[in-house]
Amino acid sequence: MAETIIKIDLNKSAYENDKIHNRWHPDIPLVATVKPGDDFIVECYDWTGGQIKNDDSADDVRDVDLSQVHFLSGPIGVEGAEPGDLLEVDILDIGTFEESQWGFNGFFSKQNGGGFLTEHFPEAQKSIWDFNGMFTKSRHIPNVEFAGLIHPGLIGCLPSKELLDTWNKREAGLVATDPERVPELATLPNGETAHMGQMTGDAAKAAGAEAARTVPPREHGGNCDIKDLSRGSKVYFPVYVDGAGLSVGDLHFSQGDGEITFCGAIEMAGWIHLRVNLIKDGVKKYGIKNPVFKPSPIKPRYDDYVIFEGISVDEDGGQHYLDVHVAYRQACLNAIEYMTKFGYTKAQAYAILGCAPVEGHISGVVDIPNACATLWLPTGIFDFDINPSADGPQKKVSGGMDVPLSKDKE
Amino acid sequence: MAETIIKIDLNKSAYENDKIHNRWHPDIPLVATVKPGDDFIVECYDWTGGQIKNDDSADDVRDVDLSQVHFLSGPIGVEGAEPGDLLEVDILDIGTFEESQWGFNGFFSKQNGGGFLTEHFPEAQKSIWDFNGMFTKSRHIPNVEFAGLIHPGLIGCLPSKELLDTWNKREAGLVATDPERVPELATLPNGETAHMGQMTGDAAKAAGAEAARTVPPREHGGNCDIKDLSRGSKVYFPVYVDGAGLSVGDLHFSQGDGEITFCGAIEMAGWIHLRVNLIKDGVKKYGIKNPVFKPSPIKPRYDDYVIFEGISVDEDGGQHYLDVHVAYRQACLNAIEYMTKFGYTKAQAYAILGCAPVEGHISGVVDIPNACATLWLPTGIFDFDINPSADGPQKKVSGGMDVPLSKDKE
Amino acid sequence: MAETIIKIDLNKSAYENDKIHNRWHPDIPLVATVKPGDDFIVECYDWTGGQIKNDDSADDVRDVDLSQVHFLSGPIGVEGAEPGDLLEVDILDIGTFEESQWGFNGFFSKQNGGGFLTEHFPEAQKSIWDFNGMFTKSRHIPNVEFAGLIHPGLIGCLPSKELLDTWNKREAGLVATDPERVPELATLPNGETAHMGQMTGDAAKAAGAEAARTVPPREHGGNCDIKDLSRGSKVYFPVYVDGAGLSVGDLHFSQGDGEITFCGAIEMAGWIHLRVNLIKDGVKKYGIKNPVFKPSPIKPRYDDYVIFEGISVDEDGGQHYLDVHVAYRQACLNAIEYMTKFGYTKAQAYAILGCAPVEGHISGVVDIPNACATLWLPTGIFDFDINPSADGPQKKVSGGMDVPLSKDKE
Amino acid sequence: MAETIIKIDLNKSAYENDKIHNRWHPDIPLVATVKPGDDFIVECYDWTGGQIKNDDSADDVRDVDLSQVHFLSGPIGVEGAEPGDLLEVDILDIGTFEESQWGFNGFFSKQNGGGFLTEHFPEAQKSIWDFNGMFTKSRHIPNVEFAGLIHPGLIGCLPSKELLDTWNKREAGLVATDPERVPELATLPNGETAHMGQMTGDAAKAAGAEAARTVPPREHGGNCDIKDLSRGSKVYFPVYVDGAGLSVGDLHFSQGDGEITFCGAIEMAGWIHLRVNLIKDGVKKYGIKNPVFKPSPIKPRYDDYVIFEGISVDEDGGQHYLDVHVAYRQACLNAIEYMTKFGYTKAQAYAILGCAPVEGHISGVVDIPNACATLWLPTGIFDFDINPSADGPQKKVSGGMDVPLSKDKE
Repeated sequence: MAETIIKIDLNKSAYENDKIHNRWHPDIPLVATVKPGDDFIVECYDWTGGQIKNDDSADDVRDVDLSQVHFLSGPIGVEGAEPGDLLEVDILDIGTFEESQWGFNGFFSKQNGGGFLTEHFPEAQKSIWDFNGMFTKSRHIPNVEFAGLIHPGLIGCLPSKELLDTWNKREAGLVATDPERVPELATLPNGETAHMGQMTGDAAKAAGAEAARTVPPREHGGNCDIKDLSRGSKVYFPVYVDGAGLSVGDLHFSQGDGEITFCGAIEMAGWIHLRVNLIKDGVKKYGIKNPVFKPSPIKPRYDDYVIFEGISVDEDGGQHYLDVHVAYRQACLNAIEYMTKFGYTKAQAYAILGCAPVEGHISGVVDIPNACATLWLPTGIFDFDINPSADGPQKKVSGGMDVPLSKDKE
Repeated sequence: MAETIIKIDLNKSAYENDKIHNRWHPDIPLVATVKPGDDFIVECYDWTGGQIKNDDSADDVRDVDLSQVHFLSGPIGVEGAEPGDLLEVDILDIGTFEESQWGFNGFFSKQNGGGFLTEHFPEAQKSIWDFNGMFTKSRHIPNVEFAGLIHPGLIGCLPSKELLDTWNKREAGLVATDPERVPELATLPNGETAHMGQMTGDAAKAAGAEAARTVPPREHGGNCDIKDLSRGSKVYFPVYVDGAGLSVGDLHFSQGDGEITFCGAIEMAGWIHLRVNLIKDGVKKYGIKNPVFKPSPIKPRYDDYVIFEGISVDEDGGQHYLDVHVAYRQACLNAIEYMTKFGYTKAQAYAILGCAPVEGHISGVVDIPNACATLWLPTGIFDFDINPSADGPQKKVSGGMDVPLSKDKE
Repeated sequence: MAETIIKIDLNKSAYENDKIHNRWHPDIPLVATVKPGDDFIVECYDWTGGQIKNDDSADDVRDVDLSQVHFLSGPIGVEGAEPGDLLEVDILDIGTFEESQWGFNGFFSKQNGGGFLTEHFPEAQKSIWDFNGMFTKSRHIPNVEFAGLIHPGLIGCLPSKELLDTWNKREAGLVATDPERVPELATLPNGETAHMGQMTGDAAKAAGAEAARTVPPREHGGNCDIKDLSRGSKVYFPVYVDGAGLSVGDLHFSQGDGEITFCGAIEMAGWIHLRVNLIKDGVKKYGIKNPVFKPSPIKPRYDDYVIFEGISVDEDGGQHYLDVHVAYRQACLNAIEYMTKFGYTKAQAYAILGCAPVEGHISGVVDIPNACATLWLPTGIFDFDINPSADGPQKKVSGGMDVPLSKDKE
Repeated sequence: MAETIIKIDLNKSAYENDKIHNRWHPDIPLVATVKPGDDFIVECYDWTGGQIKNDDSADDVRDVDLSQVHFLSGPIGVEGAEPGDLLEVDILDIGTFEESQWGFNGFFSKQNGGGFLTEHFPEAQKSIWDFNGMFTKSRHIPNVEFAGLIHPGLIGCLPSKELLDTWNKREAGLVATDPERVPELATLPNGETAHMGQMTGDAAKAAGAEAARTVPPREHGGNCDIKDLSRGSKVYFPVYVDGAGLSVGDLHFSQGDGEITFCGAIEMAGWIHLRVNLIKDGVKKYGIKNPVFKPSPIKPRYDDYVIFEGISVDEDGGQHYLDVHVAYRQACLNAIEYMTKFGYTKAQAYAILGCAPVEGHISGVVDIPNACATLWLPTGIFDFDINPSADGPQKKVSGGMDVPLSKDKE
């Protein structure tokens, strides 16, 4: 068995583990070093570091401290890696811990970041998903079971100081355009809850104050939340610092394109088995800016779909100009409405879009003024026939326990 | 053989054929009537009505009159169809004319509408694609050949008067926010080049003055340019007028997600074989706003990809807030840059993204401030290995004839 | 459009067309010559040359003259082809004639060759399949519709004289082991009904008397009846004579693995669009004995199956030693029995196995004494749910018109 | 985590574990009982019970005692199961032990059972495959790596006494036709090495003397060696005794269709996670004789192939009548010859056919006298291009360590 180079204890705080960090900074010390060709295993906290529990209350989702996220494992050094190289990473496998056979999906309160459809789902809700081998189902959402398209939501190499400065400058610039906005336009550095790995003392404090938050995807990859970057896939990351400094976390048992519920996949703790190699000077050879990847040969086949269109006219009839974001939101709302005809609540349908291997395609982006996006709902995840027919929908869903909701505190 | 209920003559102007129209209006007379369960064939002009030629000059793309588009075949009545029904349409097949075994792809001049990457490709360019059975290749773009994912770019039912008024109001409202903009924000009614089918005289003139242009996708479907709505798929369209009034056109031999070059697919004249059925009161039964469809069992399998990420930081480093449009543009630019390393010109690479069965996925839309989109480039369309490797790209592309360009007239 | 180098007239006898032949012999004159890189179209009779009609009687299947089959189009010469080369053939497309939108499937009488399950279906039966674009269904078999996996049942190059002699010797040897057997063990040369293409007079008579029948697959390919050698695939054929001499026929709209009903696919007349290239000295370079091929990117996706096992214990409990033939027959019988529980007659179920894109896999061939084979029945071809469930089968099939049967003449 | 109801210790003999058995008999006591709807985990020895080692000698393969195989875990009782029911088994997952990250493939000596191509590979050889997450590669076979299509080679329910008697009678009958044959025609009961689970004393002795060997697949499933019955699939087994008595073993990390090398897959120890449900009276409801199954949604996609044909003319030119076994052997030999052109030894190529997800299709079984079978070699398992091309094969394989061979003892 490959060596487990980073271990975690789910019963201890992620802050106590110095092979974990929750910010991006070039000076975070490497916690292990591997050679090109090596494969190894890394254990990971769930992205919140254990703030969410396996129960039937959404209070923890409502009260989550998002300044702490995401807890990453690393950074891992790769011998011989230099800025300008491409780090080839094979995701050989991802799995769960025997003692933690479940994951969670949540809608954040609009007061705490919200989500893609926060106007429609303004309060905190949570669903729990039990794992049964390669499959999952939820006591909160009946008649759905599917195989996990397991992937890391967040993976990438340490930025250089120069790249970090670029990030900080442009994101601060955006926030400055509307500094009072709730939710905020971007998450700027926040030293208070920073976990800088093996940095200590003043150095940690100084770095933490300028270290980039882990929320957005950036040039190095980072929090891309790409469901297809799943176990079995191969990724090419740009290297910015000597040794590369690869970190990974935010494992998802499954996710729909867009991670639309924000807390947005089936979030889990677990382990990831990686192999690394180098393409020397690969950034220049291939003209790489963002990571490039190859799909896995082992993607679950849910190849039959009902496909929903959405255009960039919003739910109030407002006309937007080639706005794919609006178009995809409409496609999602159309799918939710459709699922309610089979007996699901809107919250259950929304959770399904966040958790199941739903595809989101950009279909037309040039036919002014309407962008067109499509939402592909896999039919094979349901244990009944969800296709349209002349007989109309035969309601099959008993409802059972709905997705728990916790009202905002006054 | 199913009956061909609409025939065309490629040697005659589309304006001379009264089973063709180029605007949406509820009063356009039905040109044929079929029964539920019937299958039938409809011939279609290419979307420009023959303005583009099979030659090596982009002058025709530069000089195209876009106020004429799109020439549609129909409207076709369906017995018993009433507002609120769903019209189930099976796309049984799509084919080409023996005398017209080619299609075209174009980049419009920025002065004439531009395209998704018009800042990078501001002048008119054109590539011609020859059809060889189910496959296509272009003398302008070497080392690429692939099977067509043939589909109608534009299909849908006639709007009701009420729906038409809604469209006109909201699109005029958008144009009013910046009426001098070039290109315009939306294409408003234009009676001059309207072809109202079998309407004549003052009635045609009056209707043409208020009839909706065919450019954007709307609630009824219309110009969705969804590559996966391909032959073999099954579509459910909302019905707004008695008899449904189904029209179709803008056939594409192939297209990438987004139809990014605007003239955007491999555009062709041809025929489409359809079968219709009704789901009575289906709009309400299934909560349908936009069309819903099922994918074809006969989609070409180009299942191996190199996948490019893009985030909503633009090519000048500008930070955008969760803008999928910007993110997808970056993914496209990343793919173009990558292909140049194998010897393609940027224009050739851009044309490939427009023409080949490229996928565009919405990957992350909640991780502020960056949206993340992915562009999936199928490796099987190339006759050489386009994957990254430690050896670097082995240039294989001879270049040959590049994509013809015609400079804007002074 | 590519040139049609061999044309046929369905209203005339195949014997009157000198670009058709029904035997293999090296001296059959080439009827056309093409160059490497060329693509071209060839029209083909159905394999029986029009003996079977689109009606509801199986008399024609009972009375068919099998000594005439198969009528092939060719041979086509390829410039520069020499013995030892590989002829690369791209099957660019296959289609039907506008005036002949149907095909047939038949069970031969046991007295006239029978089929795979002739003990169970000893008399002639026939089903007619109507083509609707890329799809087919039969008035004799309700609730089934599927996309054609269109392919040539028979394609290959002319044998050399030496190879022909080998065939004749080994097949005569087999027949000699049981010369009176009905049906015969192999089909030996038969000059009476031979159609030797453009050979005439004594030469034709002499060659016809020794020319190989077209029934079995042999080293050159020939009557392989491989459903996956479908339009879009690429085949590499050994060349045995100067100019190669490629012939093709026996087009199938669809077929299950094994072509088990013998007349066995959905047999049709139509056209095939080919492109040829050469790999000089390819036989030696790649160690080729039989043709090699690459699958099509355009295979219909019927990827969900109910899979039936069969072992080499026959239906009477007889034990056979590692006999895949017996095992596959059991898997077929198991599938037929299963389908009857949903209301199909056995003949309808048998016809479905012959016509639909059913897979036959060799699963185990070493676990003495039982071979194991599997029959994969695609669920997507049925318009109802054919999966097992705790509720038991819900009979959906109305039966309608059964598969016509014609009793043997006394 | 689901409960592990059967545990094993790889350091102890399988004979010491009373939840293991290696024969089929209705009286073997149930070792655990589960309820319909339960999921649970079962640990399994490799089929030989640990006789083969992770080293570079084939001595252990040569000297293996095959009278001991296969060591199965079970039988497991299911509450409420009665003869005539169908036991629905979901294979939720299969995995390896942390301390046993490898598997083996072997060719048996012709003197000890041989294999599918034993005339060509008459002596014992072995290859060792290392597991890297979901992937495997072998130090004995360079340039090949692929994802495991992990499956149980052997699974099924206990036979009734009546069924057992049927088996014994028909297999003894076969052996009686040639009792001196080496290898034997079937493996008859052998009490000496029988492991009857929790039976003891005389009862065990008596039952062991008549218990069926586990080698062949039979009506109940058993040693089917169907690679597609993989993790994620759903199987329906006939029940013959009260409580069903489900047993499982012979786990394979991967296997080609036919398991042609006999020791034939990548054999491994490991665990399997199952869920059971009942279809009461399902045997009759669905007309079931042998097990029926549904494919997994998680099959690795190696969808591009080079496909080899074989016909029932053997390697010495001998003509066989519709013999799929001969045809498939020819297809295998053709594939082996082809691979040698890229630098593999014949033994390496043979091992690849046994271990990789190779497909074996029954293509034609009615075209007298030649059956036609196809062998599908997936191209994606090689790290170089194994397709034919005009340039001929570019040898890429360094050979490295070949597959170890141990000569028969004198």
